[in-house]
Amino acid sequence: MIKFHNPSTIGAPASRYSHGAEAGPGARWLHVSGQVGVDPSGKILPGIEAQTERAFRNVEAILKSAGMGFDDVVKINTFLLTRDDVPVLRTLRDRMFTKTAPASTLFMVAALAHPDWLVEIEAVAARQD
Amino acid sequence: MIKFHNPSTIGAPASRYSHGAEAGPGARWLHVSGQVGVDPSGKILPGIEAQTERAFRNVEAILKSAGMGFDDVVKINTFLLTRDDVPVLRTLRDRMFTKTAPASTLFMVAALAHPDWLVEIEAVAARQD
Amino acid sequence: MIKFHNPSTIGAPASRYSHGAEAGPGARWLHVSGQVGVDPSGKILPGIEAQTERAFRNVEAILKSAGMGFDDVVKINTFLLTRDDVPVLRTLRDRMFTKTAPASTLFMVAALAHPDWLVEIEAVAARQD
Repeated sequence: MIKFHNPSTIGAPASRYSHGAEAGPGARWLHVSGQVGVDPSGKILPGIEAQTERAFRNVEAILKSAGMGFDDVVKINTFLLTRDDVPVLRTLRDRMFTKTAPASTLFMVAALAHPDWLVEIEAVAARQD
Repeated sequence: MIKFHNPSTIGAPASRYSHGAEAGPGARWLHVSGQVGVDPSGKILPGIEAQTERAFRNVEAILKSAGMGFDDVVKINTFLLTRDDVPVLRTLRDRMFTKTAPASTLFMVAALAHPDWLVEIEAVAARQD
Repeated sequence: MIKFHNPSTIGAPASRYSHGAEAGPGARWLHVSGQVGVDPSGKILPGIEAQTERAFRNVEAILKSAGMGFDDVVKINTFLLTRDDVPVLRTLRDRMFTKTAPASTLFMVAALAHPDWLVEIEAVAARQD
């Protein structure tokens, strides 16, 4: 069970995420590598929307492999190339996280490892079985 | 209780932080979202000094919401737009962390989510109750 | 004992790392600050190869200080200045992680804290004693 923190002493989050997220001593913790818009066949999908959705699906597959789901995500970090892509990222993130709003950090990087990648998404998740 | 590591086999940290920080199996862990220089009313503060101090105060408010404080911070990550702002960041960080020196990573990003944000600070904290 | 996840439902990792890595409730967790190519005397080593090897050796020294080693690394994050240096990073990472392949995120930053630093490597490790 993740505990989310949004104290009234500071401004509300700029979009749908939580300022803090916490898990107790009994949890196992999963770190998910930065995921990109590459499908199972190795093809890089075209455009920010397809890449972002695919990156989230990849995160979901790794969570599932560990017996977890989006509800177990404590923290999500998103790396984009341009601020223009922030709205798409937020829209898709809201579609994925329907029940919870994890802690989040987002910034623009100078470049990703492949010139055609537009977004990279990593996560930390915790679950008490 | 956080255990800090600064082995003599490598050079001392470049400023007041620790090379490693550790918490035991009994701890609960809090992830704090990237905080920026926005006050509770939603106003973006002017300049790197005011923004950095506000970002740290926001981190502190989230720690407090989880029954934690700066002493419980294991890792702090700082993202700036220019290397010119590193000294201000270090001065304010030293003012916040008076008793402990958490592990730390700092680098310059290409951009933050809002064009007027100059600094973003996230943290990971742990506390054994 | 770290549990690695590479579900067949998504593409294989782009190099030798795991899509996910997990540790159980009994583990203690170590966060390692971003390490750079600076030797114990404070000298910045020349070139990406020497800096990357030194950064990994620094990570190793901090792991050792906590009674851990490369096998205990759950996640490794690498920050480079140019995509040209990715092959060197991967070659050296493969040389360090001989038995395990941790979760990993890699991207290019706008700048590091010192103008002569070419690479920064941070890690999260877990060990159940």
